[in-house]
Amino acid sequence: MASAQHKTFALAAHDEGGVLSKFEIERRALGPKDVKIAIKFCGMCHSDLHQIKGEWGNSKYPMVPGHEIVGLVEAVGTEAQKFKVGAKVGVGVFVDSCRACANCRQGDEQYCTGNGILNSAVFTYNHTLPDGTLVQGGYAQTVVVDEAYVLRIPDNLDLAAAAPLLCAGITVWSPFLHFGVRSHHTIGVVGLGGLGHMAVKFAVAMGCDVAVISHSPGKEALAKKLGAHHFIVISDEAAKSAHARTMDYIVDTVSAPHKLQDYLPFLKTGATLCLVGIPTKPYELHAGDVLMQRLKVAGSVIGGIRETQEMLDFCGRHGITSMIETVPAAYANKAMARLEQNDVKFRFVLDIGGTLSASSPELEGA
Amino acid sequence: MASAQHKTFALAAHDEGGVLSKFEIERRALGPKDVKIAIKFCGMCHSDLHQIKGEWGNSKYPMVPGHEIVGLVEAVGTEAQKFKVGAKVGVGVFVDSCRACANCRQGDEQYCTGNGILNSAVFTYNHTLPDGTLVQGGYAQTVVVDEAYVLRIPDNLDLAAAAPLLCAGITVWSPFLHFGVRSHHTIGVVGLGGLGHMAVKFAVAMGCDVAVISHSPGKEALAKKLGAHHFIVISDEAAKSAHARTMDYIVDTVSAPHKLQDYLPFLKTGATLCLVGIPTKPYELHAGDVLMQRLKVAGSVIGGIRETQEMLDFCGRHGITSMIETVPAAYANKAMARLEQNDVKFRFVLDIGGTLSASSPELEGA
Repeated sequence: MASAQHKTFALAAHDEGGVLSKFEIERRALGPKDVKIAIKFCGMCHSDLHQIKGEWGNSKYPMVPGHEIVGLVEAVGTEAQKFKVGAKVGVGVFVDSCRACANCRQGDEQYCTGNGILNSAVFTYNHTLPDGTLVQGGYAQTVVVDEAYVLRIPDNLDLAAAAPLLCAGITVWSPFLHFGVRSHHTIGVVGLGGLGHMAVKFAVAMGCDVAVISHSPGKEALAKKLGAHHFIVISDEAAKSAHARTMDYIVDTVSAPHKLQDYLPFLKTGATLCLVGIPTKPYELHAGDVLMQRLKVAGSVIGGIRETQEMLDFCGRHGITSMIETVPAAYANKAMARLEQNDVKFRFVLDIGGTLSASSPELEGA
Repeated sequence: MASAQHKTFALAAHDEGGVLSKFEIERRALGPKDVKIAIKFCGMCHSDLHQIKGEWGNSKYPMVPGHEIVGLVEAVGTEAQKFKVGAKVGVGVFVDSCRACANCRQGDEQYCTGNGILNSAVFTYNHTLPDGTLVQGGYAQTVVVDEAYVLRIPDNLDLAAAAPLLCAGITVWSPFLHFGVRSHHTIGVVGLGGLGHMAVKFAVAMGCDVAVISHSPGKEALAKKLGAHHFIVISDEAAKSAHARTMDYIVDTVSAPHKLQDYLPFLKTGATLCLVGIPTKPYELHAGDVLMQRLKVAGSVIGGIRETQEMLDFCGRHGITSMIETVPAAYANKAMARLEQNDVKFRFVLDIGGTLSASSPELEGA
């Protein structure tokens, strides 16, 4: 059992150029409630790209991104009881929270409002702790995390393909549960990318009637393959009329600019459209569009620890993982370039365990 | 008991000029389930102004506006059981609905989606029935309405001041209930006009902590007189910070253009801002503003029959009515002109019973 600080190889960006290169970082000593994880895979989230390039204006360098972490437990602290060495585990978008605010106490740690010391959840990377330590993410060989913020990954799931569940998956799962999706409902999924394809898989496995709403007629085959029952091209006025007021819930996963007016008419009276992407420009919201059928336009980010575990267990029972393209560490800059072009179906996952070590080659483009 | 059609004097607009003048209309014969009401007072809603002037594009003339009707039962149909002659009653924004759609069956008649014959609720005026009859509203001596769409007015309420409950009141009451307002909540009320002052009265009577949010520092005295606990001028950054994330629900009653961004930060995680006014321009909605605290921006229109009766009974118990200025029928055009300037605190109510008859004078400005 390791109890001292340790060094580990990672991929870091050093400025807003956002170029990743091999970089050695130090992980904290294993505390009594901590788990040390040998990282096997880490998903590449679009937010990693935004943050290494400083596009959200709050980037701290050097930055090791990565918050879709899966691996095996390598050591556990003296009081840690949740995992045994060798267990398949995951870490998502945050690694701690205040545990005292109303949101933490009800299991919504993602909305932690702080306790006077912390002001929010502690994010998995690009987050400065009260003592000045910069938290570093999952594009690295190891990570040390409090067991309370570590998830069990069901044994039957492919570890690489499970990684995106920790962010892309929970981002669509949490509002499904929060906004009351039920098996007899008709669910609309706007966009069929990293988040949208997970939403379709979840809704199908929940027994819902599922409609994919897309700008791209070419996505119909994939939608149907994933189990969607309906495919609506948003420019098809006849399809829009046929599906008007049929949906109990819509999850809108699209970050490119689009019009809420095109989607709200699909909702039944009282139903919710939930935004999970953040376009750069604001939406136009016509009050009449929500008033006349008592609709709600809501938003949601990731999910809490309890519900993330519930999602993972559900995925285990239903054999649900993400569609991924696994790439070696050396390919990370190329993968980021392709991610910027949306050239991936649907998630790059870095093979950390197999391709990142002291002796592994420097990255292409570094 | 009258069972034939009957004529009654009314105030009607004849074109988009929107000038009201005395006009004789015919009411239907009393059906077995109908109630004939001798109208005593009718509230003047801002929507009456929009519709007599054709501003919503669907106006049908001649038009007798008015959907905040109170009066006394003058006759009841052979099978009508709900009211006795002489009972104090009210009629709101709709006088019938399909009674078959999911919304009608759950008491949300205001969101009636129709049964193949009707396409929506039958509105109290400016509505054409399937047989071609144009439904006429409450600026008239009498009206005949199915008892199922007639409300009891508690005896202790001033009849004139109760009239606005039928539209302004229920418009803010219904979403309070639908969106789960509870007595321990902090409620924000945006705007202190016809709807906003009712929202304050309801929330205070429900035992809530109530904050009025306004552009006008001059409204503080009235807000406090109505029982509000906090008054926030939206330009006061210190007050905005002090009240950030304190509110469980906000009802936004303002129809003039304003920014949702100014109000969403008042909401606690997961809370709802409900729009009940329709500005002419769309709102800007920044996705991040709702995502980061799982907020909802919703809308709501009026309310169902069951909940309107619940509201009226609540008002009876708490002695709640609207602040009004009662005016004679002859003043209706002048009142509309003042309404257009928002020059009323807070609702004009026409004294129909006392000032509209065969022998009453023609209207000023007609």
